[in-house]
Amino acid sequence: MKGGMTRSEMLVEISNRLHAEAIASLPPNVRRRIRALRTLQKEFVDIEAKFYSEVHALECKYDKLYKPLFEKRSQIVKGSYEPTDEECLNPWRDESEEEELARAVKDTNITDATDKSKPEEKPAEPPMDPNVKGIPDFWYNIFRNVSMLCEMMQEHDEPILKCLEDIKVQLHEDPIGFTLEFHFAPNDYFTNTVLTKEYSMKCKPDEENPLEFEGPEIYSCKGCEINWKKGKNVTVKTIKKKQKHKSRGSVRTVTKSVQADSFFNFFSPPAMPEDPNSTIASDIQALLTADFEIGHYIRERVVSRAVLLYTGEGLDDDDDDYEEEEEEEECSEEESEDEEPAPRRRGKRGTKGPPENPAECKQQ
Amino acid sequence: MKGGMTRSEMLVEISNRLHAEAIASLPPNVRRRIRALRTLQKEFVDIEAKFYSEVHALECKYDKLYKPLFEKRSQIVKGSYEPTDEECLNPWRDESEEEELARAVKDTNITDATDKSKPEEKPAEPPMDPNVKGIPDFWYNIFRNVSMLCEMMQEHDEPILKCLEDIKVQLHEDPIGFTLEFHFAPNDYFTNTVLTKEYSMKCKPDEENPLEFEGPEIYSCKGCEINWKKGKNVTVKTIKKKQKHKSRGSVRTVTKSVQADSFFNFFSPPAMPEDPNSTIASDIQALLTADFEIGHYIRERVVSRAVLLYTGEGLDDDDDDYEEEEEEEECSEEESEDEEPAPRRRGKRGTKGPPENPAECKQQ
Repeated sequence: MKGGMTRSEMLVEISNRLHAEAIASLPPNVRRRIRALRTLQKEFVDIEAKFYSEVHALECKYDKLYKPLFEKRSQIVKGSYEPTDEECLNPWRDESEEEELARAVKDTNITDATDKSKPEEKPAEPPMDPNVKGIPDFWYNIFRNVSMLCEMMQEHDEPILKCLEDIKVQLHEDPIGFTLEFHFAPNDYFTNTVLTKEYSMKCKPDEENPLEFEGPEIYSCKGCEINWKKGKNVTVKTIKKKQKHKSRGSVRTVTKSVQADSFFNFFSPPAMPEDPNSTIASDIQALLTADFEIGHYIRERVVSRAVLLYTGEGLDDDDDDYEEEEEEEECSEEESEDEEPAPRRRGKRGTKGPPENPAECKQQ
Repeated sequence: MKGGMTRSEMLVEISNRLHAEAIASLPPNVRRRIRALRTLQKEFVDIEAKFYSEVHALECKYDKLYKPLFEKRSQIVKGSYEPTDEECLNPWRDESEEEELARAVKDTNITDATDKSKPEEKPAEPPMDPNVKGIPDFWYNIFRNVSMLCEMMQEHDEPILKCLEDIKVQLHEDPIGFTLEFHFAPNDYFTNTVLTKEYSMKCKPDEENPLEFEGPEIYSCKGCEINWKKGKNVTVKTIKKKQKHKSRGSVRTVTKSVQADSFFNFFSPPAMPEDPNSTIASDIQALLTADFEIGHYIRERVVSRAVLLYTGEGLDDDDDDYEEEEEEEECSEEESEDEEPAPRRRGKRGTKGPPENPAECKQQ
């Protein structure tokens, strides 16, 4: 293999070369006409860029219409607003099914509790307080249900994410972009009430490669500082390392801080590499590409369809795909782990499982 | 396995069930609040549907701006318009590279022709006529380069697709949708000059499942009749079958017509099943889903970026993915082939190869 190239990259390079040679073998006047088509294509993307700018303006217009709905959702989730009976009607749904299931689940719970023959592996969960406020752990359960988010969430992140009260999107008109705001209840971990991640987009064909334009694209992002309370920073871990003195042969143990896996690393994205052709640049670029996808996904799917991700109605096959990759990745991580055992990334096969019963949380 | 379900469908069903149970186990007032969030979600999709309608109106507006560019492209491809020198400038490109490659290719050709020691497997291709009109086989080469199209193209389709002069999209405003027009030069195969495929879209949440709405969706399509010239219909083949008389035991051979694999089946999509729950309905639905994807792809990618698919500049990784699946599929097809050998679907590994040298075509 050519240095550092994947098989797929190599195939692309070979294919590009073959295409270029085929074009080069055409008579000059045919190649000249192809150049004329490229000129037309350039005119096309210049107009298309204006189309996408108009779409973004439309998005900003509609964002104002969505905002009151999201605000009311936030209040219902937090428990600061109790919906009226009328607001709770879902006329398109067959609610008798849900009622029946609710009765069945209740009956099962009672049977379980009195069934002495069943081995009790862990103490029965106390039922959720029927007078509980709002919808407990709403956003935390979305993190559990959506593979892309679940994969980022470590065990030590969970109690913090249970304090997540809302995710909001603020759109920026000029230059275009958006900010994700993660609103937290007062908590024991950091003093911030809002953590932000800002994405900058561009909606213009690149000067050097104008024909590659396919619409607005995220090109950079900015996190925020988290003011961790003492000893609560889950994004660092201390590791102990034994060092042997070169000549004396004596051994000492040093402690050093290294980055720990955590969802909260999302707020410290790597800086864009200055030299885009360096070896490290391609690693960073891969990290940023993944980050942009997550930001885009949260904006497009999570914020606008939160209730469906909470109930599971809106989870799709993509979640499954993502999960499989996650499992593979985990193996290789195991091999490369060379320092002291860190909180393990959990192999959440049940990612698409039910929203956790909030009563469970109290046990952590 | 449960009757007819794939593993993935079963997992989805189990997951849905678990989600439903988890929701059912919540206290009634929490479930009530979730219903209020669904009501808000319904309001959201109703507004979102208006947003998408506005986007479609914008698309229609921009379509008028794109049309003259596509018209000029068509004329250059057909050779009815010769671009000016200024129109052939691609100032953002390094054209010296192309020139250099062209010289190299030319030199190689000359060497090849005079190198007597090289085994000559087939006669050398005559170079393309330097005075050729337009860009020969422009659309045919796009079919060859794009896996999704290449897979549909059979060997017997190729000479017909070499007569394809343009693909145009006509947008419909109300009800929304679009028609793909395939314009052909006069040919020996059919008398039509245009073959059409019409797609109907809807941009309203479904009444029974409003929350599933995610934007405009193709929901039906209509082909067109092809007036095949006598003996030229590539979409049917005749097969011979031996029949044994039940009592007498005598054998006779009957001939019957069956559908043959062909790109031109694209113009005879299956009718929507009347009973969507019948066994055959899910097969038809799968065929239609694939058809809608192709229609969408031609509209979104092929027509708007034709030159980049011709030169190979605009082919992406998706093409690769598609190809791998194709290879797998072919194996199973081999097993199920039970009648007399039909023109085989070609395992085009070189799908992303160079646009065929038009000189080659003359040999077929």
